[in-house]
Amino acid sequence: MAPVRESPRASRPRVGGFRHGRVPGRVRSEQLLDVAERLFATTGYGATSIEAIAAEAGVTRPVVYSHFGSKDGIYLACLRRARAQLEAMMFDAMAGADGLPAQIEAGADAYFRFVESDPARWRVLFGGDAAVSGPVAEEAMQLHLGTERRFASLLADSPAAKDEQHVLAFSHAVGGAAHQLAQWWLRTPGIPRERIVDWYCEVTWNGVRALVER
Amino acid sequence: MAPVRESPRASRPRVGGFRHGRVPGRVRSEQLLDVAERLFATTGYGATSIEAIAAEAGVTRPVVYSHFGSKDGIYLACLRRARAQLEAMMFDAMAGADGLPAQIEAGADAYFRFVESDPARWRVLFGGDAAVSGPVAEEAMQLHLGTERRFASLLADSPAAKDEQHVLAFSHAVGGAAHQLAQWWLRTPGIPRERIVDWYCEVTWNGVRALVER
Repeated sequence: MAPVRESPRASRPRVGGFRHGRVPGRVRSEQLLDVAERLFATTGYGATSIEAIAAEAGVTRPVVYSHFGSKDGIYLACLRRARAQLEAMMFDAMAGADGLPAQIEAGADAYFRFVESDPARWRVLFGGDAAVSGPVAEEAMQLHLGTERRFASLLADSPAAKDEQHVLAFSHAVGGAAHQLAQWWLRTPGIPRERIVDWYCEVTWNGVRALVER
Repeated sequence: MAPVRESPRASRPRVGGFRHGRVPGRVRSEQLLDVAERLFATTGYGATSIEAIAAEAGVTRPVVYSHFGSKDGIYLACLRRARAQLEAMMFDAMAGADGLPAQIEAGADAYFRFVESDPARWRVLFGGDAAVSGPVAEEAMQLHLGTERRFASLLADSPAAKDEQHVLAFSHAVGGAAHQLAQWWLRTPGIPRERIVDWYCEVTWNGVRALVER
C-alpha cells in the first residue's frame, strides 16, 4: 500500500486511522452511512442534504454521489444496513432460545432492545418519520416485508405449521403489533422494556399456539 | 332561500341538486372532500394539486382555499372524516356484539370491511402512501392513536381490566397487528376477509383474556 501522504489540512476528519484520500471504499461507505444516519435522525430526512453529509464526513459531494448515487440511495443503504442489524439481533436471539414461546420472547426482547438503543434512528428509519414516497417507500416496504418473511420461514419449520398463508398472516400481524407498540412506547416514557416484552408476548402467544396446534 | 339563478355555464357540475354558486357551505365541503379523496387515491397525494381539485369540483381555487386553507388542510379533513367513519363502523359493530371475544371479532370484521371497500383510499389515508411529514404526519398519528384510545377505553370498562397502561399497550399492539395485516392482505390477492378476521382474532384473543383475567 502507498505511504500515507501528508494532507495540507491536518484537521480533516480521520476515518479508522486512514487519512482523507487514502480511505478504502468500504471504510468510506460505512463512515458515510454513519454520518447520514446521524443527520437523518437528528435533523430529519427532509432537512438533510448531500452537502451536509459530505461536509460532516470531510469529503466533497462527488464522493458521496459516487458511493450512493443520491440522497434516496444513501437512505436506502442506511435502511438495508439497519434492517440487517435488526434481523441479526432478532434471529440470533431466537436461535439461542428453546421452543416457540421462548423464541418469540427472545425475538421480541431483541426487537424492543433495538428500538430502545436509539429511538431517533428507529423513528427515521422504521417509524415513518422520513416520510419517503414512491419507489423509495416501496423498497422500504419490501425490506420490511422481508423480515416478516424470514420470521415466517422460521415458524414454518415447526412440524405443525402447515398453512403457509396462515403463517405469513400471523407473522405480519405480530410484526405490526411490535411496530405500533414501539411507536406508542416511545411516546410514553417510563415503561421498562421488560414490561413491553411481556405484554407483547401475551398478545402473540395464543396465535402461535393456534398456528402449531392445528 | 333565494331562487336558483340560471348559470350561463349550464354544463357545470351540479352538487346535490344545487347549481354552482348556490351550494351551501357544508354541502360544498363534503363535495370537495369527495373529489380530493378520489384524486389522492387515484393519482397519489404528491401529484394532486389544489388546482386539480378545484377543476374536478367545478369551482375556482379560492373556493377550495377558503374551505380548507391548503392541500395539507384538505388532506387532514379527509383523514378526520374517514377515521370518524371507520370508528363508527368499528364501534357500532362492537356495540352490537355480546362479550369481549365477539366484540373483538365484530370490530375486526368492520375494520377489514373498511379496508376492503376501497383499498386505494385506505392506502393513501391510512397506509402511508401519502408520505406526509412534519405537523401533518403528527396530526395523522394523533388521529390514529385516538382510535386506539377509544378502543382502550371500551376495554377498560371490563371489570377485570385494572391497569390502564396495560390496556393501552394491548390496544396499540392489536391496532398495529390489524394495520400490517391489512398492508399484507392488499398485496396478497385471493384471501377472503373472513379468513383474515379469523386469523386476526386468533392472534388477539389470548391478549384479551390475559387482560381481563388478571
